[in-house]
Amino acid sequence: MHGGKKGCYKEPTIRDAEAEPAMARDFEDHCWKDIVDADTIAIYQAYRRQTYVGDNPAVLAIDLYNKAYLGGNRPVREVDREFAGSCGEHAWKALPPTQSLFAAARRARVPVIYTTRHVDTGGVQSTNRAMGRQRDDVYDIKAELAPRPDELVIYKERASGFFGTPLIAHLQQQRINSLIICGESTSGCVRASTVDAFSYGFHNVVVEECTYDRSMLSHKVNLFDLHHKYADVMHIEDVLAHLDGLAVERKVA
Amino acid sequence: MHGGKKGCYKEPTIRDAEAEPAMARDFEDHCWKDIVDADTIAIYQAYRRQTYVGDNPAVLAIDLYNKAYLGGNRPVREVDREFAGSCGEHAWKALPPTQSLFAAARRARVPVIYTTRHVDTGGVQSTNRAMGRQRDDVYDIKAELAPRPDELVIYKERASGFFGTPLIAHLQQQRINSLIICGESTSGCVRASTVDAFSYGFHNVVVEECTYDRSMLSHKVNLFDLHHKYADVMHIEDVLAHLDGLAVERKVA
Amino acid sequence: MHGGKKGCYKEPTIRDAEAEPAMARDFEDHCWKDIVDADTIAIYQAYRRQTYVGDNPAVLAIDLYNKAYLGGNRPVREVDREFAGSCGEHAWKALPPTQSLFAAARRARVPVIYTTRHVDTGGVQSTNRAMGRQRDDVYDIKAELAPRPDELVIYKERASGFFGTPLIAHLQQQRINSLIICGESTSGCVRASTVDAFSYGFHNVVVEECTYDRSMLSHKVNLFDLHHKYADVMHIEDVLAHLDGLAVERKVA
Amino acid sequence: MHGGKKGCYKEPTIRDAEAEPAMARDFEDHCWKDIVDADTIAIYQAYRRQTYVGDNPAVLAIDLYNKAYLGGNRPVREVDREFAGSCGEHAWKALPPTQSLFAAARRARVPVIYTTRHVDTGGVQSTNRAMGRQRDDVYDIKAELAPRPDELVIYKERASGFFGTPLIAHLQQQRINSLIICGESTSGCVRASTVDAFSYGFHNVVVEECTYDRSMLSHKVNLFDLHHKYADVMHIEDVLAHLDGLAVERKVA
Repeated sequence: MHGGKKGCYKEPTIRDAEAEPAMARDFEDHCWKDIVDADTIAIYQAYRRQTYVGDNPAVLAIDLYNKAYLGGNRPVREVDREFAGSCGEHAWKALPPTQSLFAAARRARVPVIYTTRHVDTGGVQSTNRAMGRQRDDVYDIKAELAPRPDELVIYKERASGFFGTPLIAHLQQQRINSLIICGESTSGCVRASTVDAFSYGFHNVVVEECTYDRSMLSHKVNLFDLHHKYADVMHIEDVLAHLDGLAVERKVA
Repeated sequence: MHGGKKGCYKEPTIRDAEAEPAMARDFEDHCWKDIVDADTIAIYQAYRRQTYVGDNPAVLAIDLYNKAYLGGNRPVREVDREFAGSCGEHAWKALPPTQSLFAAARRARVPVIYTTRHVDTGGVQSTNRAMGRQRDDVYDIKAELAPRPDELVIYKERASGFFGTPLIAHLQQQRINSLIICGESTSGCVRASTVDAFSYGFHNVVVEECTYDRSMLSHKVNLFDLHHKYADVMHIEDVLAHLDGLAVERKVA
Repeated sequence: MHGGKKGCYKEPTIRDAEAEPAMARDFEDHCWKDIVDADTIAIYQAYRRQTYVGDNPAVLAIDLYNKAYLGGNRPVREVDREFAGSCGEHAWKALPPTQSLFAAARRARVPVIYTTRHVDTGGVQSTNRAMGRQRDDVYDIKAELAPRPDELVIYKERASGFFGTPLIAHLQQQRINSLIICGESTSGCVRASTVDAFSYGFHNVVVEECTYDRSMLSHKVNLFDLHHKYADVMHIEDVLAHLDGLAVERKVA
Repeated sequence: MHGGKKGCYKEPTIRDAEAEPAMARDFEDHCWKDIVDADTIAIYQAYRRQTYVGDNPAVLAIDLYNKAYLGGNRPVREVDREFAGSCGEHAWKALPPTQSLFAAARRARVPVIYTTRHVDTGGVQSTNRAMGRQRDDVYDIKAELAPRPDELVIYKERASGFFGTPLIAHLQQQRINSLIICGESTSGCVRASTVDAFSYGFHNVVVEECTYDRSMLSHKVNLFDLHHKYADVMHIEDVLAHLDGLAVERKVA
């Protein structure tokens, strides 16, 4: 969905492609274009389609906890020496657009749902990474992105926000039909959550500028995979435009 | 687990690293080494560990159906014109090692469990790819890799072999504690199944030479992600050596 | 929801109790009233509430296969000698109201979704019951209740229609928010499916006259449990009245 | 498994019925025998089988929290006036055998896993019961039955201990193959958890004297249903005898 408000609010199965503005970015105009070769793009042309924010969405904010920001706005290679698991500069770069995303969602009365984890999970980990002793607040949501008191926080032990959690029940009870996904890491919990969301039948948007990873290669290839198979990877300005339109629409209604 | 039979049969949590032969390949000696830069390898060093085939394993053979081989042993770019979804030469290259894997598993009385899908699934698809009309046998397992009459075939509608299927119940009833995963595509159903297997608590091996994808970039980066986060990516010769040792051990027992 | 059409179409969380007709049956006016004592009814008064058919419903028809009807319209004790698993006269009594339910649902464009099982499920059974060799068509849906060509049939191996099946994905993709449940057995697959549906966040109706069991005691107590904890047990005439109202409403829309 | 230690430790699929002592109680010698008629017992004879504690078990202790004991050892009808949800005398009667069960399990190094719930679950409830404001400690495990510091407590929002929780992952990682289930309520969380455990492929024992409900009718009929379809309902003395045998065996090993 590239700027065309009208299309955004339509039933996903019957879409009006002509209504879209002529200048919309290409389906492949994303961060992966400098590493994916022309042959691969050709092979993947069967996935080309109009992208859009789905009907009755919620924002799903994956693992935006302090640990990802430790060591500050510096290269991952530097912060990693002291703070294993930090995403360094990639995390900090995504902070302002993620704040904008949450603000727009709240104006549009779109629920913002967070995931994080407990510090102690009895030996069940989300990946194979060795983890030493950690500060008590590492899995608190970063203050600049903190949930409001009435917003849902899902505690998980595995990569996917759906595995071993009641997330699907909350989404079903709130009649959420699509997700706007952001957070970290692209190749870990964001990918696993998005694949599960697709399996459960949701239309998914992953916001490119609001996801990040420690490895740029994994970040780009995972966004490429997600975009073609399980989600519409969209740019933040297009998602914000949609949410602003929805805010107006819901105020009128 | 690099060739050391003794280590293979041990409890995974208490392993005897010294017993391993000195010439074992490095943790990062895999197909991704030509595309992952040194900084990323450094960042991922917290994931380094001894790899091994787990206790009481089953082989999980993902989507080895005719469709992946259509058009023959030619570049994907060529076969794709007529047969969308074929993995072309990548599929054909993996055929002999996969036959060896199945033979070794059967000699060791390790169950081989297959996944595939029904031709008609009422609109629920495993990914977003547009699919035209298809021949009736496209989702039959390729004859050279066909299941024996008593082997389990799981029919799925989504990428993961666990989602919307009774696979976990069959594994639990057979007291399977680990999986040896092969098939296609690395970036689709193999990855989704492996992530779910990890979430359910299995120790997973992904056999590098027995997995394939249409895109080499996605193949390599997904194996890299899986190896560090959710599975031990192992070479076929090491897995075969383990299964041969297990066959001897189980014959004696 | 006892006859009050207006109330039926309202949002479940904000309901207008005064709009209900004065003659509606009592919350406990169901088949269990001859076996549940007054003390128990008193203890369960915290569950009293207005019952209703939920928003955007689907009919979920559990295991209406030939096996349940074998031996004909005779007492279970008699048919059981030759046809273990038959529900005998209880199955046959529920046949006409179930036909009416399906007809009304189809007129109202409410999807009818069936569950059944494959004859061979590789040793994974829905319960502990010993089962001998069976005719090939025992798990075909009974002809009088047969699905139309475009209706979904879910094949399951366990008691719940959700366990090990893609049912939740189909419901989510069709934006179904509530279920109207019928079929057999009340104490087996109907109960297990209804508990799972509640867990997933659906509002559930169980149609008393369209469910049955081999044991009347288990039938009554399971309906009692379901009514108080997980579902609104409603009488067929009230469900039909709702569906007829919905048919009119959807024709106008 | 009625007292026959030898049989208890055998592989469940190949059991030696002759080794069982002659005085073992009948398959139907349980609390439901005063309410289930002879015809029903006859219809259910296909479920008759040898009961036993399965291999590598864990105790699953369902919802043994303070709320169930509020108002003291008095009839439910009396305590219910002030403490909705209390199981009164039924809870208190089950306390000593449950203490014995936990002690025997710990001596045999059988894990004891608890479920409870958080006080605030954001509107997702385990059943339809209306609940007023509650004390903060109502969902703490009762002190006499409290978990040890290293024992796992699973927090759930629905009836089943498996739904929306990582329980299956913990059981799989610990290679648990069977469960010994106790707690409350028989017709609510015990039943839902047992049905799910059966679906996942576990052999289940429900300990009759260590489960309870507010309604005796629901208690008896639910145990009857569980015993025939999904679990072996066993008496506490037989389970204790098995655990004591296992403690000796594991000390020797």
